[in-house]
Amino acid sequence: MARSRLGALVVTDPANLYYLTGYNAWSFYVPQCLVVPAAGEPQLFMREMDAQGAHYTAYLPTELVHGYPEDLVHRPDRHPMSWIVRRAVEVGVLADRPGVRIGVEADAPYFSVRGYQALADGLVRAELVDSRELVNWVRVVKSPLEQDKLRVAGEIAQVVMQVAIDHVEPGRRQCDVVAQIQYAQTLGARKLGGDYPAIVPMLPTGETAGTPHLTWSDLPLRSGEATTIELAGVYDRYHVPLARTVSLGPPTAELARCAEAVTEGVQAALAQLRPGSTGHLVQEAFAESVGRSGYVKRSRVGYSIGIGYPPDWGERTISLRQGDLTVIQPGMAFHLILGMWMDGWGYELSEPVLVGPEGAERLAPLPQELFVKT
Amino acid sequence: MARSRLGALVVTDPANLYYLTGYNAWSFYVPQCLVVPAAGEPQLFMREMDAQGAHYTAYLPTELVHGYPEDLVHRPDRHPMSWIVRRAVEVGVLADRPGVRIGVEADAPYFSVRGYQALADGLVRAELVDSRELVNWVRVVKSPLEQDKLRVAGEIAQVVMQVAIDHVEPGRRQCDVVAQIQYAQTLGARKLGGDYPAIVPMLPTGETAGTPHLTWSDLPLRSGEATTIELAGVYDRYHVPLARTVSLGPPTAELARCAEAVTEGVQAALAQLRPGSTGHLVQEAFAESVGRSGYVKRSRVGYSIGIGYPPDWGERTISLRQGDLTVIQPGMAFHLILGMWMDGWGYELSEPVLVGPEGAERLAPLPQELFVKT
Repeated sequence: MARSRLGALVVTDPANLYYLTGYNAWSFYVPQCLVVPAAGEPQLFMREMDAQGAHYTAYLPTELVHGYPEDLVHRPDRHPMSWIVRRAVEVGVLADRPGVRIGVEADAPYFSVRGYQALADGLVRAELVDSRELVNWVRVVKSPLEQDKLRVAGEIAQVVMQVAIDHVEPGRRQCDVVAQIQYAQTLGARKLGGDYPAIVPMLPTGETAGTPHLTWSDLPLRSGEATTIELAGVYDRYHVPLARTVSLGPPTAELARCAEAVTEGVQAALAQLRPGSTGHLVQEAFAESVGRSGYVKRSRVGYSIGIGYPPDWGERTISLRQGDLTVIQPGMAFHLILGMWMDGWGYELSEPVLVGPEGAERLAPLPQELFVKT
Repeated sequence: MARSRLGALVVTDPANLYYLTGYNAWSFYVPQCLVVPAAGEPQLFMREMDAQGAHYTAYLPTELVHGYPEDLVHRPDRHPMSWIVRRAVEVGVLADRPGVRIGVEADAPYFSVRGYQALADGLVRAELVDSRELVNWVRVVKSPLEQDKLRVAGEIAQVVMQVAIDHVEPGRRQCDVVAQIQYAQTLGARKLGGDYPAIVPMLPTGETAGTPHLTWSDLPLRSGEATTIELAGVYDRYHVPLARTVSLGPPTAELARCAEAVTEGVQAALAQLRPGSTGHLVQEAFAESVGRSGYVKRSRVGYSIGIGYPPDWGERTISLRQGDLTVIQPGMAFHLILGMWMDGWGYELSEPVLVGPEGAERLAPLPQELFVKT
């Protein structure tokens, strides 16, 4: 904050709220924020019914949590953020003075345009500036405690993917497989319960496997088709995403060749995912390797992971792609995701990793291959 | 749009995209929108990897779907919305002329401040105005097909709540119960598969039942405590939320008295939930009824439901509360939710309903009572 010359930061991203205060509830569908002043204690502002119980999860004392009246919820003519800005100025965490710069998360989900405008209207002298994912960047290097939570999440991810692979069978409905996946996700592993993922399981199948981000239907899986499965293991909001592909019956020659090239490519990328390297070099290692088999992947090959809330389990910081010069450090975690979305078919393989002093620690070390069920 | 004198509307809310085009994928964590011109065909703008397959779910022909380059994703220095506005002007769905008003969903999730600013910067002559949930309001009255989807979702909700009640037992972990809930949610009912809910199951228990919106932990449920359960049955994105409370062991006198008052109150409110009534009258009926037992509920007693995507299964239109003069019509659907969040305990009961010519049709007619397990 000092480097950005900010007098205060208004944090709205639920992942950043959790990181900074421990606050954890599904209340982000209405406006809420943490105001972090350059000096002094941060204070939480939220809906009255949520403020009552914020202390069950947040470390903040009750007097630093403020609840706005219920009748401000979902009104076309007034906005909770107008109340919040007045109260924040009143209690001294926001200063409305010329020359004061106040950071806002301008690209975060759930901080709406109306919320921003209400904040701007309430601050006639101070200036609002985009904080540019300031807290997200602080989150990028994980503490030892966070690393352990990621390891638990990784164990869950591995257990869950095995359940998914076991249940992908001809004639079984997509939703039946997802039901098993979700059951296992929430049960957890090692006696530790699982948490909800920021993204639901995705399993495009057959022709639609050429498209990412499709969820599921109640149609049956069919012999001769491949299904790409992307899911996450989650523990205390820490996410370890994982992707594999299952072929029901022998794969087409095209799919088998692609899978082989990607397995080689992922090994090249993993070797490059070590302290001192850059996002660019990791991408290049993969591109060079699969390029030898004639494949080109235009999208990024991975991104930074950690705490996640819907709609995204990525941190929106480092992307492993061309031109990314971020230097990789111990304590960073990534989802190296190699999705090849072709016309009418697809292949996905991923490796979630934690970067240690020596290189990448695989968090869910399943075989790096196309799973073929015959 | 004519009434609001809009030259075009930029739709970003995933529920509105689904309603208008059928497009359905978990791609809303990056910018995407449908531009609806006052005359002519609407066109979709999204990430390149998603645009490839948008036709699997959306009714739009391929040439009306535009994909922005992958390297625009998660960049601090450029934004996909700048590309989108240029392309939308180029293909003629947005006109950048003085006097043209372009509606935007200023309070929708996933339409970020940066997205708005990029849109505004790309339109130097036209004016951006808040559309004020224009499409959400169109969605409020359901067609016969939509009503049937809600009925299926209601059946799922009822099945799932029964599973939840059956599994709430002393010593069982909260996450074990949620695993069963999610399994049943996705399995569906009547051979029709379930879809993912916009909000995960919430089950605050014991002391924390005094707070809404807490999700779950891996702590065991305990005798002598009550758990409030709020979940949804979902079919094809149509949501029927449902809440009940389970007491493990005999309830306290306080909880039993509250439950009784709320059961009476919900019947009074249901009787008022009929064509020609208003949101205000429904709230008043409940308030008067529970007021006779000395209870006061400050928050709204319900809201309009239908299509839902995270983070909310409500439509953000009608709230059943003081001052709401919206006239209730056949085809509207509501979640009448009576949450009493007290200091250290809580009680929740809800009724999802579809309004017919004669009044409220209960979509998940479970007994309206506190479930006591001894």
